[in-house]
Amino acid sequence: MVEFSSRMDLLKGSEIRELLKLTSRPDIISFAGGLPAPELFPVAQMEEASKVVMEENGRAALQYSTTEGFPRLRQQIAERMGAKNNIKTDADHILVTSGSQQGLDFAARVFLNKGDVVLLESPSYLGAINAFKACEPKFVEVPTDNGGMIMEELDKILATTKNVKMIYVIPDFQNPTGRTWDLDRRHKFMEIINKYEIPVIEDNPYGELRFEGKSMPALKSLDTKGLVVFLGTFSKILAPGYRLGWVFAETEILSKFNFMEQAASLQASTIGQMETSKWIDMFDLDAHVAEIRKVYGKRRSVMVDTMAKELPDCCEFTRPDGGLFTWIVLPEYMDAKELQMKCLEKKVAFVPGGSFFPNGGHENTLRLNYSCMPEDKIVTGITALAQTIKENLK
Amino acid sequence: MVEFSSRMDLLKGSEIRELLKLTSRPDIISFAGGLPAPELFPVAQMEEASKVVMEENGRAALQYSTTEGFPRLRQQIAERMGAKNNIKTDADHILVTSGSQQGLDFAARVFLNKGDVVLLESPSYLGAINAFKACEPKFVEVPTDNGGMIMEELDKILATTKNVKMIYVIPDFQNPTGRTWDLDRRHKFMEIINKYEIPVIEDNPYGELRFEGKSMPALKSLDTKGLVVFLGTFSKILAPGYRLGWVFAETEILSKFNFMEQAASLQASTIGQMETSKWIDMFDLDAHVAEIRKVYGKRRSVMVDTMAKELPDCCEFTRPDGGLFTWIVLPEYMDAKELQMKCLEKKVAFVPGGSFFPNGGHENTLRLNYSCMPEDKIVTGITALAQTIKENLK
Repeated sequence: MVEFSSRMDLLKGSEIRELLKLTSRPDIISFAGGLPAPELFPVAQMEEASKVVMEENGRAALQYSTTEGFPRLRQQIAERMGAKNNIKTDADHILVTSGSQQGLDFAARVFLNKGDVVLLESPSYLGAINAFKACEPKFVEVPTDNGGMIMEELDKILATTKNVKMIYVIPDFQNPTGRTWDLDRRHKFMEIINKYEIPVIEDNPYGELRFEGKSMPALKSLDTKGLVVFLGTFSKILAPGYRLGWVFAETEILSKFNFMEQAASLQASTIGQMETSKWIDMFDLDAHVAEIRKVYGKRRSVMVDTMAKELPDCCEFTRPDGGLFTWIVLPEYMDAKELQMKCLEKKVAFVPGGSFFPNGGHENTLRLNYSCMPEDKIVTGITALAQTIKENLK
Repeated sequence: MVEFSSRMDLLKGSEIRELLKLTSRPDIISFAGGLPAPELFPVAQMEEASKVVMEENGRAALQYSTTEGFPRLRQQIAERMGAKNNIKTDADHILVTSGSQQGLDFAARVFLNKGDVVLLESPSYLGAINAFKACEPKFVEVPTDNGGMIMEELDKILATTKNVKMIYVIPDFQNPTGRTWDLDRRHKFMEIINKYEIPVIEDNPYGELRFEGKSMPALKSLDTKGLVVFLGTFSKILAPGYRLGWVFAETEILSKFNFMEQAASLQASTIGQMETSKWIDMFDLDAHVAEIRKVYGKRRSVMVDTMAKELPDCCEFTRPDGGLFTWIVLPEYMDAKELQMKCLEKKVAFVPGGSFFPNGGHENTLRLNYSCMPEDKIVTGITALAQTIKENLK
């Protein structure tokens, strides 16, 4: 009998990725994944960028390269964070990772021993919870309201909880709720963090995808003590197929992430980095992101307008200003997993919300993705979902 | 003061990757890395394969895909293992990883708790040692001779050591020594393993690169109890720039690797997998590997012939039948790190052997790579190395 490590008792397949297999059938209206809209991918331009890379520098593209990442791409990332997140830094402070999922895995391994406490929003991103579980921490969920994490609760928890080694947050268009912290909360958060000096993982995959309202500064841009580790990704602003994300942190912390990168996979794909970098130099990422924002913004509106019209009054939902997700709170007696089975019969899929709460409960919640379904299917799917909910009211 | 996890006390930057930065200067004759020869990369063909992928299926290539990997590539891998390693399996038993370094990281995380024992050849691959360290195991080094791991020693260690949870081996053209186990040792190894039922990680990046002698069956092909996890990679037979490797294991074990993949980086690059798969379908991997074998075989011969001619008698070295590396044992009083500093003055680089021994010692050893230097530079570099050794004899 082969024995496995204790961490394998905690790691199960992600329900979302299992569901994605099911929902990849073309007859399903899927609000389940977090996929970007493939029709917006700049396929022809990417082909062009790829051709230029191979012709100018093909041998280097196919070879090993440095752990930190392709120098020109690191520079482009630093410049973009300056322009979009008001974060002043340089290429030397960037580590390119295989998607920001790898950044989450490294964060846990850099900061957490078995049994240490990680704080996170309640609910929080399933993929992060899963990555952290591999380090066998205790999860303490910080209560949230429609504006995100409640700072008084965070302060209370930090004052009374031992062994807190890391705080994980998604302040912009959170996965799964779509909520965004306002400026006041961001300042309060940094005050609290500066008091306790706990490292913070700021996960920011969706920040650029704002449809309306004013951009909020990244926590990292307000960080005076070097406590915030910022995770970014090309998955939502360009394409996830290359698996390219990045970590920005102060030198000492970044060097630990760098050691993890060496141990975990040596480096991100050389050719993927060079093609992405070349595409950014040859084409217009700002214009591309503007196009994504326009399309997702309309889909968001269609989804929340349909929910407003069709959902019974006992359901609450968020109206996100950006990102990919909205979130429904059903009546307490209703189980989203059962609802999911019934909706699948009508060929509509979503993710039950329970798995976004690391300590369980909240089975009356669900996450909806609007980025990868056309507007007519959003209307049809949400109407069917609302109908199923109504059929199951007590 | 930010606190780090205890594993970070063990993880340092890889000396090889630090050295690679230094030795990437074109005026250095470097035997330090483990780089494939870039002049053999099929750049134009890869460009063609990339174009076909983008034109036939560009949107899918840029999107997320399944954790397990691109189906056609998994099938090609299964077929190739059948043809080259006498391993009978199918696509369902393959997990594609971001390089086989990621397979090493997953192996440690699947099998090792902190303080568990991992057995490995003495010396063994630095990148594996580094990956395993992130799980804070104890390393027990199994003595070796010119034929690889000594099976009587392995048996003795297993009979007297508690908490052995994993055995890591490279039976073909080992990194760093270039040694290969003969058939008898392979059978003895499997007998011992079957007795103790300990999972084995068989790392096989170089198996196809045999210059002479008869191919040996993979341990996995002799595995009747499902104990062996086989790690393969495209890095040495095609190109490392895509970061693509794979894991083949029995269903229960593979499912654990799959959970790790979800937690660690979701999946390997979609576009990288599709381009590699398309290249294999469009072109001739066997012919390509034959060409690599021819070039590396000649370089190996030039290197060992020069060593035979120039090295003083007090030095021992291996004459590998394949792979990328040879290994020198200097007189006991000589420190390869000091030698390395002196050789760098003469613009010749190698890797001191000490870091291949997880428990230290053996500072009088060094590893030489012959795959990425032309023959004239091999002669010049080895002659300079031998001269420096002679200058430092007592």
